[in-house]
Amino acid sequence: MDIISCGEILIDMISKTYESSLRNVKDYEVHIGGSPSNIAINLSKQGFKSSIISKIGNDFFGRFIKENLEKNGVETSLLSVDENVNTDIVFVLKSKKSPDFYPYRSATLNMIDHNLPRTKIFHFSFWALSTEKNLKNTIKILNESKNAFIGFDPNYRKILDKTNKSIIDILKTILPKVNIIKPSEDDAESIFGKMNTKDYIKKFHELGAKNIILTLGKDGYIISNGKKEKKYTSYAKEVIDTTGAGDAFWSGFYIGILNNLNIFEASKLGNAFSAEKIKKVGAVIDLKSYKEIAKEYEIGGIL
Amino acid sequence: MDIISCGEILIDMISKTYESSLRNVKDYEVHIGGSPSNIAINLSKQGFKSSIISKIGNDFFGRFIKENLEKNGVETSLLSVDENVNTDIVFVLKSKKSPDFYPYRSATLNMIDHNLPRTKIFHFSFWALSTEKNLKNTIKILNESKNAFIGFDPNYRKILDKTNKSIIDILKTILPKVNIIKPSEDDAESIFGKMNTKDYIKKFHELGAKNIILTLGKDGYIISNGKKEKKYTSYAKEVIDTTGAGDAFWSGFYIGILNNLNIFEASKLGNAFSAEKIKKVGAVIDLKSYKEIAKEYEIGGIL
Repeated sequence: MDIISCGEILIDMISKTYESSLRNVKDYEVHIGGSPSNIAINLSKQGFKSSIISKIGNDFFGRFIKENLEKNGVETSLLSVDENVNTDIVFVLKSKKSPDFYPYRSATLNMIDHNLPRTKIFHFSFWALSTEKNLKNTIKILNESKNAFIGFDPNYRKILDKTNKSIIDILKTILPKVNIIKPSEDDAESIFGKMNTKDYIKKFHELGAKNIILTLGKDGYIISNGKKEKKYTSYAKEVIDTTGAGDAFWSGFYIGILNNLNIFEASKLGNAFSAEKIKKVGAVIDLKSYKEIAKEYEIGGIL
Repeated sequence: MDIISCGEILIDMISKTYESSLRNVKDYEVHIGGSPSNIAINLSKQGFKSSIISKIGNDFFGRFIKENLEKNGVETSLLSVDENVNTDIVFVLKSKKSPDFYPYRSATLNMIDHNLPRTKIFHFSFWALSTEKNLKNTIKILNESKNAFIGFDPNYRKILDKTNKSIIDILKTILPKVNIIKPSEDDAESIFGKMNTKDYIKKFHELGAKNIILTLGKDGYIISNGKKEKKYTSYAKEVIDTTGAGDAFWSGFYIGILNNLNIFEASKLGNAFSAEKIKKVGAVIDLKSYKEIAKEYEIGGIL
C-alpha cells in the first residue's frame, strides 16, 4: 500500500445558510466528510494505492460512504462495518471562517480493529487518539509501523477529546513516533492557546515533533525540521472554495514523499495541490496529474 | 400533574424531497419530534398540566427541544440533560404513506432516571421499553403508578428494539399493567405480522390488554374493552396533513378521561381532535378549545 489513512470517516451535515449558530439552522445538506477519506481519495485519483482504517455503522450513511470510497478506488478492507454503532455525523455551520461544528460520534469512538499492514505512508488525525481505546490502538500501530513515513494531522478540538489525559500528555507520547505534523494556526491555538507562530513551532518541537508544517491560510506556511526553518507564501492566486485545501496540501506533500523528495521540496508540491484545489468548489475535486502540477509550479525531483 | 408523558423526545430530520430511499436524500429539514412531546404540548395548550420523562444531550438540539417545551408550558424537571449523550435524531423520508426512518439513538437508550410523581395520566411509548434499562425502569414506574390512568402507544419497530427479549414477551409483561393501548395497523403488523383487524384485537387481548383502540387511518378506528367492540368512522373531512394526527387523537382522548368520560366517549373526543388537526399543516398546531370541539362534534359529558 502507498498510504493508509486513519481517522474520521463520516457524514458532514452542512447548514444551507450562513447563520450565527447551529441553533438557528433549519436546513442541512448531506456531504461525505472526513479529512482522512479526502486524502485517500486524492491519492487514489493520482494513481496511488490508498486504504482506510476507520469504522462505519451498518446504515444508509455508512453504505453511502463505503460505495463512494470504492467508486474512487480506495481500498476498504480495513474499514469496519459495525451493527452496533451509527456512522458518525458532524453538524457544520456554513462559514467563511473556521466553521462551528458539533459531532455525533458513535462509530469513531472505537474505530481501530486492525494491525497495520505494510504501507509506505501512515496518516492519522486527532480522531485516532480521541478515546482511550483509539489512543491505545494507534500507539500500537505506530509501534508496529517500522519503515512507514508517518504524518499526523493534529486537528484537536476539546469537544472531541474523550480520553482522561491532557492533550499535552497525549502529544508527548505521540509526537516522537511521528515524522511530520501539519497543524493550522487554529489547531495550534486549540492545543496551546493564543501564541505567535514562532512559539507554536517551539512548543511542538519541545513535545517531540521532528518536522512541523504550520499552515497560515492565505499567508502560506512555515516548515521546520528543528534546525532549519523556512516560510513559503501560498501559491494560490484565485480563491473560490478553501474546503479541502488542507487535505489537498497533505496529498501533494505525500506524493512528494512517495517520490523521495525531502520534506521541504515535498511541501512545495503540497502548496501547489492546495492552490489548484482552491480554484474549484468541493472538498475533493479532479486535479491535473501531479506530474503536470509539479512541472507547472517548477518543483524539481518529480520523475 | 394531569399527564406525564414518557418516550422519544428528539429531532426529526425530514427529507426535503420525496425519494425512494433515505440513501438518495441530499437535503434535510430540522423539526422537533417525538409523539410524547406532541401529546404533552397539546395538553398544555388546552390548559392541562403536563410533564415529560425523557433524556436529551447537552447540545444545541437538546437546548432547542427544552426551550420549545418550556415555551409551550410543558414542565421539564423530569427531562434529564446528560453531558455524555447526544440528543436523539431520527432521519425520516418525507412520504405520503408510513415513512421510512432511521434512528440515531443515544439519549433515549437510558432515559428514565426518576420515580413517577403523582399524576392523573401516565402515557408511554415503545421507546420506553426499547432497552433493558428502559424496560426495567418503566416496569418500576408502572408498579408505582397506583391510581394513574395508563396509556401505551405500541409504536414498535424491530430497528428500535435493543432488549434481548421478544416483543411478545415484553407485551405480556406490560399490557396487564396498562389501561389502554392504541396501535395503528402498521404498529400491529410490526408486532404480529400481517393479519386482519379482528385478529389484531384478539391478539392484544390475549396478551393482557384491557382496552384497545386500533386505528385504521381514514377508515376510523375500532375500540374494544374485551366485551364490547365498536367501530367508528373518522370525523375527518378535509385532509391537509396527517402528521401528528395520532398524537392529537391521544390528546383528545386523554382530555376525555380527565373529564371522567368512559373510554368509548373519550375516544370520540380523540376522533374529533384528530379531524381538527388534519385540517392544518404541522405535528402540533393551535386547536380550538376542547370544550368548543366537544360542542361542535356533539360529544356529551364534557363540563
